Amino acid sequence: MQIDALDTPVAVVDLDRLEANIAALQAYLDEHGIANRPHIKTHKIPAIAQMQLAAGAIGVTCQKLGEAEVMADAGIEDIFITYNIVGAAKLERLVALARRARLSVSADSTEVVAGLSGAMAAAGLELEVLVECDTGMGRCGVQTPEAAAALAARIARSPGLRFGGLMTYPTGAGTGPFVREALERLRALGLEARRVSGGGTPGMWRAHEYPEVTEHRAGTYVYGDRATVKAGAMGLGQCAMTVLATVVSRPTAERAILDCGSKALSSDLLGLEGYGLILEYPEATIVRLSEEHGMVDLSGCNERPAVGERVTVLPNHCCVVSNLFDIIVGVRGETVEVVWPVAARGALR
Amino acid sequence: MQIDALDTPVAVVDLDRLEANIAALQAYLDEHGIANRPHIKTHKIPAIAQMQLAAGAIGVTCQKLGEAEVMADAGIEDIFITYNIVGAAKLERLVALARRARLSVSADSTEVVAGLSGAMAAAGLELEVLVECDTGMGRCGVQTPEAAAALAARIARSPGLRFGGLMTYPTGAGTGPFVREALERLRALGLEARRVSGGGTPGMWRAHEYPEVTEHRAGTYVYGDRATVKAGAMGLGQCAMTVLATVVSRPTAERAILDCGSKALSSDLLGLEGYGLILEYPEATIVRLSEEHGMVDLSGCNERPAVGERVTVLPNHCCVVSNLFDIIVGVRGETVEVVWPVAARGALR
Repeated sequence: MQIDALDTPVAVVDLDRLEANIAALQAYLDEHGIANRPHIKTHKIPAIAQMQLAAGAIGVTCQKLGEAEVMADAGIEDIFITYNIVGAAKLERLVALARRARLSVSADSTEVVAGLSGAMAAAGLELEVLVECDTGMGRCGVQTPEAAAALAARIARSPGLRFGGLMTYPTGAGTGPFVREALERLRALGLEARRVSGGGTPGMWRAHEYPEVTEHRAGTYVYGDRATVKAGAMGLGQCAMTVLATVVSRPTAERAILDCGSKALSSDLLGLEGYGLILEYPEATIVRLSEEHGMVDLSGCNERPAVGERVTVLPNHCCVVSNLFDIIVGVRGETVEVVWPVAARGALR
Repeated sequence: MQIDALDTPVAVVDLDRLEANIAALQAYLDEHGIANRPHIKTHKIPAIAQMQLAAGAIGVTCQKLGEAEVMADAGIEDIFITYNIVGAAKLERLVALARRARLSVSADSTEVVAGLSGAMAAAGLELEVLVECDTGMGRCGVQTPEAAAALAARIARSPGLRFGGLMTYPTGAGTGPFVREALERLRALGLEARRVSGGGTPGMWRAHEYPEVTEHRAGTYVYGDRATVKAGAMGLGQCAMTVLATVVSRPTAERAILDCGSKALSSDLLGLEGYGLILEYPEATIVRLSEEHGMVDLSGCNERPAVGERVTVLPNHCCVVSNLFDIIVGVRGETVEVVWPVAARGALR
């Protein structure tokens, strides 16, 4: 099947670019002796995770338990869940998963550690736990190196748990000083951080500037998106995922309506102008989205599309687009080569 | 099962409120002799569409072909697709659907009308087509009453099509003057608008102020959301859909992290402050979302939640939340009564 035969809106991945992106980051991290643990939340597809592992990744990262379950179902063995697992229902599933995969998780509070310890000890298992450190993001994570060392000590003495190291997201300016002081405090307590796990796509090519960080978790790099291009981490020509759309209305000379709305592109702006870049009409702006309508301002365009014309939209944020589609179509040039279910998508997992 | 046993994040609908919302709008529209054609894009669930029909709706509205196919599969007979159907693949499906449902669609250009006519005439079918009029939204739709009349005439003389009337969204200040002039021009051409279809939840209780409008399409009213409350169309106590979430981190005194991020709440702001209202902590603000994290500013709160605590979030925009969940849990009081698959969800349909 040729790409032109696909109905719209549809999310398409250029396989040549996907493969090149996987190879390029692996080569860079190999060159610098940094372990590669890609984040599968971007693609949520076991087959792409297997490509990353075949290229040299030591394991994968998941953002939620359900993603990890899907990856384990596909035979992936080494899985790091970078999320506080909270509550009896999830702890029960975590125990079941720990029986069949080499699992590690992060934690940022004694409450979370107590829950993990209770569940794992009762099951007679030992789980590797890394301390999540907030080194600048302002999301989860302990706030100081002292707190990191104290939580590490708590993990180390908790039945059913093994202290594994430190985790932060993203690796950035604050990471070095925080991690160095935390490592010093850990040494003073006689604790060893087997891993220091950093992450992020925008800063991936500077991972070697943080010698304390032993592994890198990048997700977006497999596909790339408008935000990654704006951050300077990838070029437009490396972006592998696009959404194909059809012009369904041209109500005025300056307005076009696409059949991709917030259900295809998401409402994520990430500081960008407009909700995606129309590759054939780069001067156009997707100014507003309804669920099924993308409203396009053509006032900056000399050439303008007609009703029925197909266009190619580079999304602002590829991870959320993955989650909105049940399948991703892999193409080689103009030919459809594979259709992947987005196996780990969905809010409920 | 009790509501407390549900794992989070999960989208829950209060069935008492859902039923009351359906009854209230039906009673209002009945009182004013306006036909009720609810928009199912909010819930995407055949069982709720059946409740709307049982209450007195004359049919349903769908925003895309795939939604209409799901409704027809459930035995729903009268379906209006308020969208330009463009392209051979979709026209083929439209023909198949027209063979098994009483279908009408909207169109806003000669290109769309030509496509519809070609497909329907070739199949030996007759499809009712309404002219979409832009009476203030600035999305799809013909721009003037003259253009509406001209397109109506085009539809009326197109093989396989029957002119059905006018459609606009939302019904608003510009609707009356536009529609009155268009109807006058239609009469001058000897054309009858069997239906004038308006829509929208924020303005639903003013539908009777537009006597030219013969049917009303509201979607959001079944669930209600923060935007509807802000618009004054529903009270907080009428909102039926919430997202249950768990506090997974309390990194600082003023920050909490919920396990509902943009994959559960969407990034839709709709002009509101924050990404949802935490009912137990109304002074809190959900200031930022990652895919799996809701970042909450607690600085305005005297009482503050602990790690592991469950909270109830009223979303900004319930329609996009529906699309993000594979199931919706219907509860009566604290008891789970039904679990509905969101059968018509997804970007691909």
